[in-house]
Amino acid sequence: MSKWVYSFGDGAAEGEAGMKNLLGGKGANLAEMSNLGLPVPPGFTITTEVCTHYYANGQSYPAELKAAVEKAVAKVGELTGTKFGDAQKPLLVSVRSGARVSMPGMMDTVLNLGLTKETTEGLARLTGDARFAYDSYRRFIQMYSNVVLGVEHALFEEILDTIKEEKGIELDTELDAADLKRIAQAYKDRVQKDLGSPFPDDVEAQLWGAIGAVFGSWQSSRANTYRRLHHIPENWGTAVNVQAMVFGNRGETSATGVAFTRNPSTGENLLYGEFLINAQGEDVVAGIRTPQPITKEVRERQGGKLPSMEEAMPDAFATLKRIGETLEAHYRDMQDVEFTVQEGKLFMLQTRNGKRTAEAALKVAVDMVKEGLIGKDIAVARVDPAALDQLLHPTLDPDAPRDLIATGLAASPGAATGEVAFTADEAEKLAADGRDVILVRTETSPEDIHGMHAAKGILTARGGMTSHAAVVARGMGRPCVSGAGTLKIDAAQGVMTAGGTTVRRGDVITIDGAVGEVYRGKVAMRQPELTGDFGTLMGWADSIRTLKIRTNADTPSDAETARKFGAEGIGLCRTEHMFFEQERIVAVRQMILADDEKGRQAALARLLPMQRGDFEAIFKEMEGLPVTIRLLDPPLHEFLPHKEEEIAEVAAAAGADPAKLRARAIALQESNPMLGHRGCRLGITYPEIYEMQARAILEAALNVEAAGGKAVQLEIMVPLVGFKAELDFLKERIVAVAHALEKERGKLPNYLIGTMIELPRAALQAGSIAESAEFFSFGTNDLTQTALGVSRDDAGTFLTEYLKKGIVARDPFVSIDQDGVGELVRIAAKRGRETRENLKLGICGEHGGDPESIRFCHSAGLDYVSCSPFRVPVARLAAAQAALESRHESD
Amino acid sequence: MSKWVYSFGDGAAEGEAGMKNLLGGKGANLAEMSNLGLPVPPGFTITTEVCTHYYANGQSYPAELKAAVEKAVAKVGELTGTKFGDAQKPLLVSVRSGARVSMPGMMDTVLNLGLTKETTEGLARLTGDARFAYDSYRRFIQMYSNVVLGVEHALFEEILDTIKEEKGIELDTELDAADLKRIAQAYKDRVQKDLGSPFPDDVEAQLWGAIGAVFGSWQSSRANTYRRLHHIPENWGTAVNVQAMVFGNRGETSATGVAFTRNPSTGENLLYGEFLINAQGEDVVAGIRTPQPITKEVRERQGGKLPSMEEAMPDAFATLKRIGETLEAHYRDMQDVEFTVQEGKLFMLQTRNGKRTAEAALKVAVDMVKEGLIGKDIAVARVDPAALDQLLHPTLDPDAPRDLIATGLAASPGAATGEVAFTADEAEKLAADGRDVILVRTETSPEDIHGMHAAKGILTARGGMTSHAAVVARGMGRPCVSGAGTLKIDAAQGVMTAGGTTVRRGDVITIDGAVGEVYRGKVAMRQPELTGDFGTLMGWADSIRTLKIRTNADTPSDAETARKFGAEGIGLCRTEHMFFEQERIVAVRQMILADDEKGRQAALARLLPMQRGDFEAIFKEMEGLPVTIRLLDPPLHEFLPHKEEEIAEVAAAAGADPAKLRARAIALQESNPMLGHRGCRLGITYPEIYEMQARAILEAALNVEAAGGKAVQLEIMVPLVGFKAELDFLKERIVAVAHALEKERGKLPNYLIGTMIELPRAALQAGSIAESAEFFSFGTNDLTQTALGVSRDDAGTFLTEYLKKGIVARDPFVSIDQDGVGELVRIAAKRGRETRENLKLGICGEHGGDPESIRFCHSAGLDYVSCSPFRVPVARLAAAQAALESRHESD
Repeated sequence: MSKWVYSFGDGAAEGEAGMKNLLGGKGANLAEMSNLGLPVPPGFTITTEVCTHYYANGQSYPAELKAAVEKAVAKVGELTGTKFGDAQKPLLVSVRSGARVSMPGMMDTVLNLGLTKETTEGLARLTGDARFAYDSYRRFIQMYSNVVLGVEHALFEEILDTIKEEKGIELDTELDAADLKRIAQAYKDRVQKDLGSPFPDDVEAQLWGAIGAVFGSWQSSRANTYRRLHHIPENWGTAVNVQAMVFGNRGETSATGVAFTRNPSTGENLLYGEFLINAQGEDVVAGIRTPQPITKEVRERQGGKLPSMEEAMPDAFATLKRIGETLEAHYRDMQDVEFTVQEGKLFMLQTRNGKRTAEAALKVAVDMVKEGLIGKDIAVARVDPAALDQLLHPTLDPDAPRDLIATGLAASPGAATGEVAFTADEAEKLAADGRDVILVRTETSPEDIHGMHAAKGILTARGGMTSHAAVVARGMGRPCVSGAGTLKIDAAQGVMTAGGTTVRRGDVITIDGAVGEVYRGKVAMRQPELTGDFGTLMGWADSIRTLKIRTNADTPSDAETARKFGAEGIGLCRTEHMFFEQERIVAVRQMILADDEKGRQAALARLLPMQRGDFEAIFKEMEGLPVTIRLLDPPLHEFLPHKEEEIAEVAAAAGADPAKLRARAIALQESNPMLGHRGCRLGITYPEIYEMQARAILEAALNVEAAGGKAVQLEIMVPLVGFKAELDFLKERIVAVAHALEKERGKLPNYLIGTMIELPRAALQAGSIAESAEFFSFGTNDLTQTALGVSRDDAGTFLTEYLKKGIVARDPFVSIDQDGVGELVRIAAKRGRETRENLKLGICGEHGGDPESIRFCHSAGLDYVSCSPFRVPVARLAAAQAALESRHESD
Repeated sequence: MSKWVYSFGDGAAEGEAGMKNLLGGKGANLAEMSNLGLPVPPGFTITTEVCTHYYANGQSYPAELKAAVEKAVAKVGELTGTKFGDAQKPLLVSVRSGARVSMPGMMDTVLNLGLTKETTEGLARLTGDARFAYDSYRRFIQMYSNVVLGVEHALFEEILDTIKEEKGIELDTELDAADLKRIAQAYKDRVQKDLGSPFPDDVEAQLWGAIGAVFGSWQSSRANTYRRLHHIPENWGTAVNVQAMVFGNRGETSATGVAFTRNPSTGENLLYGEFLINAQGEDVVAGIRTPQPITKEVRERQGGKLPSMEEAMPDAFATLKRIGETLEAHYRDMQDVEFTVQEGKLFMLQTRNGKRTAEAALKVAVDMVKEGLIGKDIAVARVDPAALDQLLHPTLDPDAPRDLIATGLAASPGAATGEVAFTADEAEKLAADGRDVILVRTETSPEDIHGMHAAKGILTARGGMTSHAAVVARGMGRPCVSGAGTLKIDAAQGVMTAGGTTVRRGDVITIDGAVGEVYRGKVAMRQPELTGDFGTLMGWADSIRTLKIRTNADTPSDAETARKFGAEGIGLCRTEHMFFEQERIVAVRQMILADDEKGRQAALARLLPMQRGDFEAIFKEMEGLPVTIRLLDPPLHEFLPHKEEEIAEVAAAAGADPAKLRARAIALQESNPMLGHRGCRLGITYPEIYEMQARAILEAALNVEAAGGKAVQLEIMVPLVGFKAELDFLKERIVAVAHALEKERGKLPNYLIGTMIELPRAALQAGSIAESAEFFSFGTNDLTQTALGVSRDDAGTFLTEYLKKGIVARDPFVSIDQDGVGELVRIAAKRGRETRENLKLGICGEHGGDPESIRFCHSAGLDYVSCSPFRVPVARLAAAQAALESRHESD
């Protein structure tokens, strides 16, 4: 027979932290804290197996459950000297959901459960505080009715407002016990009216109602969607935690709060958080009253006037500090705790590993290694590479002039400039048009997520460091200023005022999430420094990873940036970008307009020295590292103008007949340019183009070496190969150019010839293509377009819908589609290496900077990934984590 | 030690017909004819292994070869009572190449080899015919210099013309022995001048020169290209055939000719061919003099005045007829023979299976089964399905008025109408624009192939039934009229005259290749009858094949045609074609312009009865056969106008605002519509469209059954699925429609829900998709586009170049790319059936009508192929051949 219920409290517990799958995260940690002898109000956890049983058996409970719960409730009563439903010493409990992983859509907490007409009277008597008792009762009715019975929240607010109006008062605190009793009754009447049945006045009914609601929320549509999107099996189930109430709203010696054992924004090793005197838990999270800091130091830094917890409740603070140290030493990670102080005594309600900014994650990880708490591997594994991106964001230039219009909390670090959008939809739309956006909201809710994601930064008028906006922005790595209280926002009119300043929809503002400031207009920014903790962690990552990290760079400046970020070579140098520059485009157009090979040769001869110069500059920068150069890829019509006025202008510049130019532009138009006359297809129809490029590359390498530079490791890459014969045809010509050059110059740089694998056919035929190719570079952008039959430029119309409906879990252009594109990569890697054992394999699509995709590349046996310069550190860390994971797998 | 040389002649041979790989086709058959005791001039074959050895060893011969050749030459001398190089009784030989398969680019024949200054004198003495001797000598010099030494043909023509001018004569026949001797000397002088070395006057040097030239031609660029295109291994090599000369130019009792044992156009069992009295072999093939028919019957039919061979040389004719019967009985196939009559005696120079038209192939195959020569399997295997297409061409309506402007030979059957093009390039260009073209040339050469292929029909002014134009046209299945001698063609001016009529470039003419007539303008045509031999062979094919043959049909008329051709169901019914019809397009556009789902629903409600009506008509026609209906596939912008004038018109018709219409059309534009918002992606973003279609299909099936029709086997097909979740989403909705309908009508037709596999990802994920899909239909058009990354609409610019350069052997849109697309099909079939054992598999791309692709589909284990109605018989035959082949493979 399964054990369905696990008790905890009084310095002992039936469960422990390792039982997360059975007890959920919250339950397991409550048990663990009990075992550690920490002050945890006693309670019990109903296991996730009950949830699974519930759904596997037509929503019915195991036969033994009722008795087990009764026994556990009785035990809680014993430990607290109370009894559930007792009119004299009533036991009150909280009921909370708690799955293995935290998940949206699950039931909100119900506090004060166990209050009835009778027990409320008892509580009033017991505490001698009728106001407290009825305040707790009306809160319970409201919470339970909303969360368990599904009655709208607003209905209760209405009642409250009406009674306050009648009495002519403004604040809840002005209500007396009689008012609150009347309100409780009005609430119950309203529920009776709304549901046609009375609010349950029986504690057992209340408890089982709440338990059922937790299990019910496991199948809520939000929870289901989330699980589908994150591949969480339905049969994991959720646990239910029932715990004796402690009250933070028992007067000035009571309080409730949340704290991090270190600063979650900066990682500073200092107890950090917020508390509210005489309040219940939800008051902090909801952001209704602005809470006070925990420590004196933080209060002073913020210039706050109300006392910190350290000052107001020194004993409770000391206990909290000691418990924080105990928990960190035990969990070997920064903790995020919830606590309540009831008449001076501190109780722990929750502990979990704390979410943190990348900056904090970095500092905490490095500090903990220094403190001897964790090893380097764990430090490397613990920093989220995707979030690292935050640190690579620019910050405001301290010397730049600025026009401060508001201040708020430094909710998520980094600075951002953009046009103001007042709704999430607006933000998403602007971002889709390639504009930088700052999303400005009074406060944010889960409905705003897509807008927050699209925005460069987030600004709210309300809410603290743990408000929705702050938490989500940190998770996403978006700069955020929250609780900028002077802002008056009128989203409907598209305008906000801040002091005397008016900002309209579309106006540009700048926010600095590191200090909590808002400026009008654009403020100059500075590139981040990549030293200190960052450098330390990167060093550890480099010593762990086996994947090499290269960059996609088309210019010496890109190359320089990437090398600073630690790039070990160039994985993709696109030669066409060089074609677009001012003087060159004229020669390119002359080439396209040429009537025959001779005409093309003449134009190419003008381009040759320019391309050679480009390569020389890049090779110098790379100082002997490998450089993969892709020969011309885009269709020729991309180089021609299409609008009438441009045609006239360009014709004049190129000395060509506008009619001819127009005709050529029309002739080159394609129905599906992505699948058209581009890549090696150009090289085959106009071999002279690739011959010029090959010569430019090889000559540049010779020149750099002749000038005393290091010999570059050249990799000449032929794009869009589908057939071995294509590569053979072009390889023959490139080799011929090399032989000719060798005759002219008496020497030749070392070079490899390889191909991009970016067509499904190429992946399947990799075995034969590898007979000619000395390396493969997976062009997973195009491979995704072709394998999925989805044009990246056109996908917006349906991919958003697909993500919403859960048809795809992730945008396949952001994170590699492992089942489809991934299988092609694996097939190609395997077949390619069967033909050529030392075949060099890399990836140069934008997936090369996505941690999930990098993990895949590691497991697929690639030699390197190549990504944009700013993603290089992300890739270095992700590669190290992939190496650690595969070590564990092979253990 | 290998045997390098195989002798034949005098009723015996060292080789035989089964040794084609070693002796080449020509050599093996010469040996076989010798063994059969037929009159073959003695000779020998140098094996293909010598060629292989030659190239494997730096172009040197095996050590033993020289002695073996000398011995074989001596033996030929013995058998003919002559001696190589002997001044008294000189042995003359022909030298011919002969690979395993006939191949362009190989060396042309050299005749009369062995003539030197000295032996020519000897030949004159021996034959008492100095004119014959010097005519042979100058022909030999010209041929050898051109073919072996690479001297331009035209140089010799100049000399000949100059001497004829000097003498004031016009015809070669007017030249006497002295003239010819002078000409021979002038030729040799010219060679000396051109090459800087004398024309070889040594018979051994001549022989080894010719042998070396044959081997050299194996690596000619034309031969290399051909081999690459046809996947012929380089190491097959070519053989060399050296054979004693017999002379068709020894006066009025000598002749040379070619003959088929049956009529290669019609299959009629009658010796059929052409001969020229007093001529050498090349005169017939070159089409310089127009030759005479072999039989009296044919001459009479053609109304010819010069005697047939049957009349002019009755004995030789009788021998030829008897030999033809012997060869047919021996080879069990129609033979194509070359012969020479030397002073009344017939010699056989070659036999091989004769190329034939589809009509002839059909008749010969069926006749030979009736004659007991072959079995039904062989008959089925022997008819080329691709050529069968010819029989499905229309013929001229006998009652249609017509304006005859010229007559010629009925060189290749079928009738065609088109615009006149005078060059191959012109023909190709017009055809690329979608125009029907008749290519008109004085005579054709290999350089015209691409134009012949592009043309609907071919007309020449010169050349017989075995001229280049006639042979190639029959092979391609193009109607052809050759040798229409009254035509005067001025290609440069783009005009031809025929009698009194002038026809200019672009004017329309009609040709009837079955009777050899040319008409001005368009003449009404008639559909072919598919009975008689055709029906007989199809019946045999049906009893052999295991693949089912369905058709792609969008209308009841398509369905009717296809059923007449033997279709066993519809494999692809495209619903969007129905959307384009006059009244419907208005409703479709209203749907697209609707602002919300309600507006779309209203427009769809108007479309529903129309779609239902379409389906009813098609289901009635199909009488209970399976019908696969594809739900809406193309992107919505295809239904909207894009030009300003159209927009105004359409807006008026749809009662819409032109600005809105324009805006919507622009909004729907896509960069790559092929990879855009189409297929099931439309169904997912606008589920109401597919719901309407599902309802129309199911209601139509119920209605047809209710009206007493047979219950159709419905297969509802969701296009462009890449993810199982897409199919699941839509399947759920279709099933919901079905359930609703069942409630309304109390019953439901049987139906399957399946998907097209047309994306590489879908093929790879077939195992998971088959959990939901009850059938797969491979959309190999789109699968080719995506797997190869080639847009069919844009491929013209490079695919032609690819075919020319041998980078691809076949257009992958015509014949399935077995290595790439084919592997995806095999993967999908395997994975799909692993999930669902009885998964129905078919193909509905245009490959479904291509014999090579059908063979692939059979081997990949598909259940059916679906093709256009006119290709159904081709598919039936190809499927039978595939079944026969796999029987042999499993033997």
